[in-house]
Amino acid sequence: MSVLAPFNDKAQQQLAAGDVPAYMQTLGKAARLAASALRRAETGVKNRALDAIAGKLAAARERILNANAEDLQRGKEAGLDSALLDRLALSDARIDAMIEGLRQVAALPDPVGEIDDMSYRPSGIQVGKMRVPLGVIGIIYESRPNVTLEAASLCLKSGNACILRGGSEASASNAAISECITQGLIDAGLPASAVQVVATADRAAVGALISMPEYVDVIIPRGGKSLIERISREAKVPVIKHLDGVCHVYIDTTADPAKALAIAVNAKTHRYGTCNTMETLLVDAPVADLILPELARAYAEHNVELRGCERTRALLPQALAASEEDWYAEYLAPVLAIKVVDGVDDAIAHIEQYGSHHTDAIVTQDYSLARRFMAEVDSSSVIVNASTRFADGFEYGLGAEIGISTDKLHARGPVGLEGLTTRKYVVFGDGQVRQ
Amino acid sequence: MSVLAPFNDKAQQQLAAGDVPAYMQTLGKAARLAASALRRAETGVKNRALDAIAGKLAAARERILNANAEDLQRGKEAGLDSALLDRLALSDARIDAMIEGLRQVAALPDPVGEIDDMSYRPSGIQVGKMRVPLGVIGIIYESRPNVTLEAASLCLKSGNACILRGGSEASASNAAISECITQGLIDAGLPASAVQVVATADRAAVGALISMPEYVDVIIPRGGKSLIERISREAKVPVIKHLDGVCHVYIDTTADPAKALAIAVNAKTHRYGTCNTMETLLVDAPVADLILPELARAYAEHNVELRGCERTRALLPQALAASEEDWYAEYLAPVLAIKVVDGVDDAIAHIEQYGSHHTDAIVTQDYSLARRFMAEVDSSSVIVNASTRFADGFEYGLGAEIGISTDKLHARGPVGLEGLTTRKYVVFGDGQVRQ
Repeated sequence: MSVLAPFNDKAQQQLAAGDVPAYMQTLGKAARLAASALRRAETGVKNRALDAIAGKLAAARERILNANAEDLQRGKEAGLDSALLDRLALSDARIDAMIEGLRQVAALPDPVGEIDDMSYRPSGIQVGKMRVPLGVIGIIYESRPNVTLEAASLCLKSGNACILRGGSEASASNAAISECITQGLIDAGLPASAVQVVATADRAAVGALISMPEYVDVIIPRGGKSLIERISREAKVPVIKHLDGVCHVYIDTTADPAKALAIAVNAKTHRYGTCNTMETLLVDAPVADLILPELARAYAEHNVELRGCERTRALLPQALAASEEDWYAEYLAPVLAIKVVDGVDDAIAHIEQYGSHHTDAIVTQDYSLARRFMAEVDSSSVIVNASTRFADGFEYGLGAEIGISTDKLHARGPVGLEGLTTRKYVVFGDGQVRQ
Repeated sequence: MSVLAPFNDKAQQQLAAGDVPAYMQTLGKAARLAASALRRAETGVKNRALDAIAGKLAAARERILNANAEDLQRGKEAGLDSALLDRLALSDARIDAMIEGLRQVAALPDPVGEIDDMSYRPSGIQVGKMRVPLGVIGIIYESRPNVTLEAASLCLKSGNACILRGGSEASASNAAISECITQGLIDAGLPASAVQVVATADRAAVGALISMPEYVDVIIPRGGKSLIERISREAKVPVIKHLDGVCHVYIDTTADPAKALAIAVNAKTHRYGTCNTMETLLVDAPVADLILPELARAYAEHNVELRGCERTRALLPQALAASEEDWYAEYLAPVLAIKVVDGVDDAIAHIEQYGSHHTDAIVTQDYSLARRFMAEVDSSSVIVNASTRFADGFEYGLGAEIGISTDKLHARGPVGLEGLTTRKYVVFGDGQVRQ
């Protein structure tokens, strides 16, 4: 039984009375209090909570699947499309993956309390920077109910309280998962309000969540671009967000042709719907006639539609004519824009003008060009001689990711536990005063 | 002659036509282009520009002082108070300090291009994080014309273009300083639009500056709390800001009395108007009768007015009764609130409730209490056995600071060159594709 149970009773009453803003305030207050407890929670306690939640999930498997069946039934009746229903669906395998995910997060090193850059100053004080939780994190997401668990586990491990607002289509699944989380927290001796799942589909809850800077330190929206843009525009709290991924591969004249082919095919065809998929291929003019026909054959095998500039179409008559919009497009589909460029400057200028500063790669054997591309391309991931598909928290060794940030401030690129923390200055003295 | 001179002509025409939004857009476009050039500028070139600007300032000393005299005359006629006029005034000594500041920034290590955390991943790719400029920084400030130079030099060294909006009362001084900066940039071969000083007092310029996410990556407001609050509320661009400094010193029962006395006196009386000055003193009950009378004598010598809780007033009858507002107050004046508390938990709870998360210190000889205070106090600087006055970029070894951030995201505490940069992921491969 948590010490914060009175908050829970109050929240239930406010919800029953239909007073969503008051309900969200109550959640906010409880989260702020829980954040104080989490800030001082030892690593072992947080890990025990993660393990306890895994145990509860395993025990509640039937209940979760039944709740999910309810959501799916409701979704079908409401006419949700099959892609959405697939994202919504849980199975034994997906629940196993959720449990495995919790164990992986428990195994990650705890970032909280890490001290860097410790040095003595001429005054005699010793100064360093200590990694600490952000406080309270609000996460707004759509259909996938496993996000509830992923988000909760990353916030918990990084010492943050969180308020989770999932999609209304997953409400029964999220409620069942939320119950497991609450029980696990209580078993480990942590406040139940360390993780709170918003229990209303009322959209006013989102408006309230993004407007409580006194209770919420940062908002992380996950979902479609229009949702994220709206939240960023309206939030009165800092937002860590992912907008779009218009990623490029530039094949330079000195590129190793076999590597260029492998990278360009993998970056486009490994998965079509991901943000780190290549959307535009840039090829240096002197090697375009060598590279493009071979590449086109490989893309044809994957049924990738090609849209090219005039010089591309001179070599590949089967390509459609690319319009100005194509250079800005995030297709998330088996479609690729191709442009023949004149050297690395032209490639960098194209990426600067049309790209989304997400992930861009060069394929080259030229040392100085690789260095220039690395320094000058202003994207969250800049890659030499590897596929853009590597821009991912797991591939980068973060262990897990809450998303990929296209912002420049605070967290840029894949965001793991470190991105959910901040650093404060710590000073150790022995009676020093300022002269 | 800069390659961006056409932008300058266009801006002048728009300004002459009174079209402030169009003028600001032109500045924004020019800044974005300059940012690309600065991103790739070598350290030596940036340092040469800083040295060149120093030379121009030295040569333009008379012109700057004359312009400043104009501003001061106008200020006196407008009835500005003496504190404001003092902040506005330049002198030979202040110009010397500006020149010395430029040389110090030139001597700082260049943060741009630094690569950390480089490691091989199981896939064979090598991943690291490279420190890179933010891009374009907008800085909005009030009367002190030397801020123009400080801000310009820190942005330049960190590879960022900047748009500076100073107070209208300093317009002639800022214009004279701006000319030196422009000439120095051109001499070093950098675009003149790397540093642009807004040449209109029209307040619409501020509204435009904070609403151009396509051209401005971050806004740093410096000035009074109401200005900063308004800008944070209205900005459509991320803001790095400093709100208030309600700083505490907590004297624990085990504190060394001589250290406690020295720290509590220094934290309050070293300077009254700074954000890292102690505003509330917390004293553990068992030592209150030992510490407070002696401290009160020291404060009396400095004419510090004391406002205490009931237990404080029982020991110090000369203290006024503190109201609830006093615990929230940032006096910035020789006034101190004093509260007797019951142990470190009570002290931490007070700091959590009333503090501003800026800088808080504990004086203690108890190892475990020091560790708890360090971990649990959620402030940008947490200090053991030293004065709060050390919370400062120079004292922490940053070399220079653009301000002290009370935000949690991105930059927290004193912000130096590092706070004006971000980190992107860099990946080196040899043809790797994702499996």
